[in-house]
Amino acid sequence: MSDSIEQITEVIRKFRDERDWKQFHTPKDMAAAISIEAGELLEHFLWKTNEEAEARIESHRPEVVEEIADIGIFLFELADNISPDYRQYASSRHLFPHI
Amino acid sequence: MSDSIEQITEVIRKFRDERDWKQFHTPKDMAAAISIEAGELLEHFLWKTNEEAEARIESHRPEVVEEIADIGIFLFELADNISPDYRQYASSRHLFPHI
Amino acid sequence: MSDSIEQITEVIRKFRDERDWKQFHTPKDMAAAISIEAGELLEHFLWKTNEEAEARIESHRPEVVEEIADIGIFLFELADNISPDYRQYASSRHLFPHI
Amino acid sequence: MSDSIEQITEVIRKFRDERDWKQFHTPKDMAAAISIEAGELLEHFLWKTNEEAEARIESHRPEVVEEIADIGIFLFELADNISPDYRQYASSRHLFPHI
Repeated sequence: MSDSIEQITEVIRKFRDERDWKQFHTPKDMAAAISIEAGELLEHFLWKTNEEAEARIESHRPEVVEEIADIGIFLFELADNISPDYRQYASSRHLFPHI
Repeated sequence: MSDSIEQITEVIRKFRDERDWKQFHTPKDMAAAISIEAGELLEHFLWKTNEEAEARIESHRPEVVEEIADIGIFLFELADNISPDYRQYASSRHLFPHI
Repeated sequence: MSDSIEQITEVIRKFRDERDWKQFHTPKDMAAAISIEAGELLEHFLWKTNEEAEARIESHRPEVVEEIADIGIFLFELADNISPDYRQYASSRHLFPHI
Repeated sequence: MSDSIEQITEVIRKFRDERDWKQFHTPKDMAAAISIEAGELLEHFLWKTNEEAEARIESHRPEVVEEIADIGIFLFELADNISPDYRQYASSRHLFPHI
């Protein structure tokens, strides 16, 4: 798997366009989708101590990673739809002072 | 700014470790943080039609992109904390059949 | 303050209609609003141990309660918009076997 | 089913205590649970126009109402756990100036 956001985004674009899904992928729905998926990720750790959460990851690593990937997929596409140059904005953030 | 997830993650790790924050970044709190940030992203589009959401992006692009970046930062770190090899799991997903 | 959901809902309806807001209160936006407010509630406890979360409540009780109230306000209105008879559905749930 | 928040809360307390669940119901986990359930509610309307969302309610009313009830159940218990007198705080809000 590529480590390049641009290359991953290209795969996402292709997957989406083969299904003609762009019409549904409004910013509002993409943000809602990210929020929903974030809830599914959080659910893995609900009612659990930190130790139990770590054990959950051990026992359900593929499922937890898939939730992370689901969020990433929507996030990369949304960033791409909103602004192909989003990195120029992100680079101005305090967190990335030297990127 | 780098296009490499690994290189971005290295910046995030460094930023976090300079502040000694890893002790707080449990999987449960990282998932909660992603969920909270996703809500802040969604809030940009609340009560808005799709046309108004697009106008919101035009007028607040840096702010919207920062919310996306905030989610990405937590997501990359969580993936890194959970599994340095998370890409092997993600690569098995239907969405990425050929990565 | 009334303890009756119906009476609270009547206050919410009046507040909303005086501002002509019903046009914006689609089920999708109401659900998004609840999700956003839930994130704001959760944010009070982010990066905190259970003990620190309890201390947060002690030091910020009115703010925490306001977040709970914000969720409740949207929840009661959504239930009212969707189904004036929603209680008949809720009453069939396992949790409320004898209501 | 009762229309009284206090009476509904009493049922919730009883249900919880019969299962000895209070030990897990920390404020942080309750807030996380509300956020997760809010995502499940929102999911009913994802990728849908307002008209399609209304149709979803028609075709899945019990399921949608159950999601609302799930949020309400956690919300009432959290309010009860945090502050038996939470209504005095809520009553000071702008929305409820005359309650």
